[in-house]
This record gives sequence, C-alpha cells and structure tokens, in this order.
Amino acid sequence: MNYPRSLQELIDYFKLLPGVGTKTAERYAFAMLDLDEEKLNKFSNILANIKQNISTCPNCGCLTEANNCIICEDESRKKDTICVVENQKNVFIFEKLGVFRTKYHVLGGLISPMDGVNPEDLSIDNLINRIKAEEIKEIILALRPGIEGNTTSLYITKLLEDTDVRVTQIAQGVPIGADMEYLDTLTLEMALENRNEVS
Amino acid sequence: MNYPRSLQELIDYFKLLPGVGTKTAERYAFAMLDLDEEKLNKFSNILANIKQNISTCPNCGCLTEANNCIICEDESRKKDTICVVENQKNVFIFEKLGVFRTKYHVLGGLISPMDGVNPEDLSIDNLINRIKAEEIKEIILALRPGIEGNTTSLYITKLLEDTDVRVTQIAQGVPIGADMEYLDTLTLEMALENRNEVS
Repeated sequence: MNYPRSLQELIDYFKLLPGVGTKTAERYAFAMLDLDEEKLNKFSNILANIKQNISTCPNCGCLTEANNCIICEDESRKKDTICVVENQKNVFIFEKLGVFRTKYHVLGGLISPMDGVNPEDLSIDNLINRIKAEEIKEIILALRPGIEGNTTSLYITKLLEDTDVRVTQIAQGVPIGADMEYLDTLTLEMALENRNEVS
Repeated sequence: MNYPRSLQELIDYFKLLPGVGTKTAERYAFAMLDLDEEKLNKFSNILANIKQNISTCPNCGCLTEANNCIICEDESRKKDTICVVENQKNVFIFEKLGVFRTKYHVLGGLISPMDGVNPEDLSIDNLINRIKAEEIKEIILALRPGIEGNTTSLYITKLLEDTDVRVTQIAQGVPIGADMEYLDTLTLEMALENRNEVS
C-alpha cells in the first residue's frame, strides 16, 4: 500500500527543501497532519505569497519587503564604503552580527566556471556602476573563503586596479575559539600566509 | 536589520516542523524564494488541503484518501489477524517492507503516564470491539520496544487474558547486520533474555 496521493505529493514538495531526503520529508508531512487547521492555512498563505511580498533592491540586490530598500536609504551608514557579499542571506548574517556599518552589494553567487557561473552572471557590472555613481572610496570583499571566493575577489580587484578605489578583503584564518583538532589544511595554510607580527 | 516581516513569518512556520531550528528554517525559507512561482503555489495548495484530502478510517485508524479504507476492504488480507501499531506512519513502514498480510489497528500512541497518556486516550476500546465483531483469532503487537511499548503490550495482553484470542508480539533483539560496536545495553539484555536454541 502506498501513501494516499495528496500525502505523497506533500512529501515530494518537502523534498524540494535543501538537504531533505525521503525520510525527513515523510516526517514533515506527517507533522503537518497534526497541525491545526488555522496554522496550516496561514503557513500555506505565507508560502504562496512570499515571492510577491519580498523583492530585491535593484541597486544593492538586498531583500526588501516594500519597494524601498532600508539599507540603501539608511542615512546613518558609511556612504563611501560597500561591503560585497555572495548572497542575500549573508547580508542578514552580517547585520545580525552588527560589525559592518556600510552599505552592501549582493553579487548573486561566486565565479565558478566548473558550475557554469561566469562573471557576467553576477552583479559585477552593477557594482562598478555603483562605485562611480556613489563615489565609493573602499569596497570590502566579504566572500566565502575558497577557490570560488578567491577567484571572484581577484577578478573584482583586477577590474578596479586602475582606479583610486581601495579594495580590501576580510581576513582569512583560524576563527576565535576554534578547536585546533578540527582545523583543515587550507585554513591553516591561509592563517600561516596571513600571519602578523605580534605587536 | 531584521528579516522582512513575511520572510520572518515563513521562517517561524518552518520552525514548526519536527527537529527544525532557526538556522534550518532560515535555509528552507530562502530556498522557497528560489522556487518558481508555479511550484510554490502547488506546494501551498497541497499544504492547505492536506487535512481535507486525508481522513482516518473509523475502524482501523489508518490514513485513507477517500472515505473507504483500502486496508479494511482488502479481501486478500488474513481476516482473523490484526497487527497492532503505535501510529499511522508505522502502517506505511510495515506495508513498504511487505511482511504483514494482515489488517492493522492504530492505537494512536503508547501508554505513558509520565506524558499524560493513559489507556483511555488510545484506541484500545475500539480494538477490543473489533476483536469481537471481526472474530479475530490473533493479535500481533508490533509496538516500539521500550518502557511505553512494553507497558502497552502488557496492558492489552491483560485485557484479553480470559479470551481465546492469541496475543503475540514481534521479537525484540539484535537487528540483522547490526554493528555490535553500537549496540545498547537494553537491546542486548533483551536479545539475551529472548535467546533461542540453535536448531
């Protein structure tokens, strides 16, 4: 005996979630049967309308609820610096950590020819235009360390080498509180290469 | 900066799924933004209607799509035997494994006074009624091994001790292919207690 058709369909939809296999999707679907009608309807509504309710700022690429971007319009942020990130989620992560007080620019990915992602697929032209239009003095590259992140950082740095724009990238090394037992070779190599004088 | 309101709401709903914390819910919500409109609407529809489309058989407690239960109405199953299970999901698991060719009875839980689950909260009266009405000769208890499962099995056995109904339970022991390194004490104790002569 198979699952009733609509239950099987629900399971199949839960399998679209990242990292969710059949067994987890089955658990989720059965949990939905235990949810009360009101919550289920609300959940379904929000899901149906999420793409209408959320839009992408045409300037910086961040997620916004209304048509105006609360980051681009925030007068308290440093006006001449842009922090460049891989995706929209990273903006929220950085904002939660509260370290940057700059504007952002979302690239929408990292250069990865193996996966068919080339520079023209990313929001790099927009970034260059913004740098001119907004008279940016520094861009801080805050991309995921690794081959793709470094390729992308180098590509952008190269594009800007004949300008006065300062291009920096956040330091790569051993995170604070790291358990040295679980360090990988690449991180350690990077930490060694970027070592500083103890002052 | 916080998440846009509707995104935050979606995250909160994903957190209703079993075992899903904030970080996973955030991943799921962002994945929904990448889903195409059509899939998103279909997902939302199925979710909204799942409880209407699925019902519970008033006789055996299994999940059914239409009003008739394909298990209760299946003429090819053994008529005089009922396999007693904890929940509706277990029926699908057992059916997938294809071992039982009996009818089922879903208890809707296991006796657990600590969690406030008493015999009257479970579908035990229904089971006793079915045994009489359907002239059942054997019930096979297939409950999760452990204190609650064993308490429930004993309770049902006690109820039927003055009848001619044969009450059995599936064997508890070391599963086939088990890695002995990961065996727990209770399973091993059970396996020792239930040991057989090698014939």
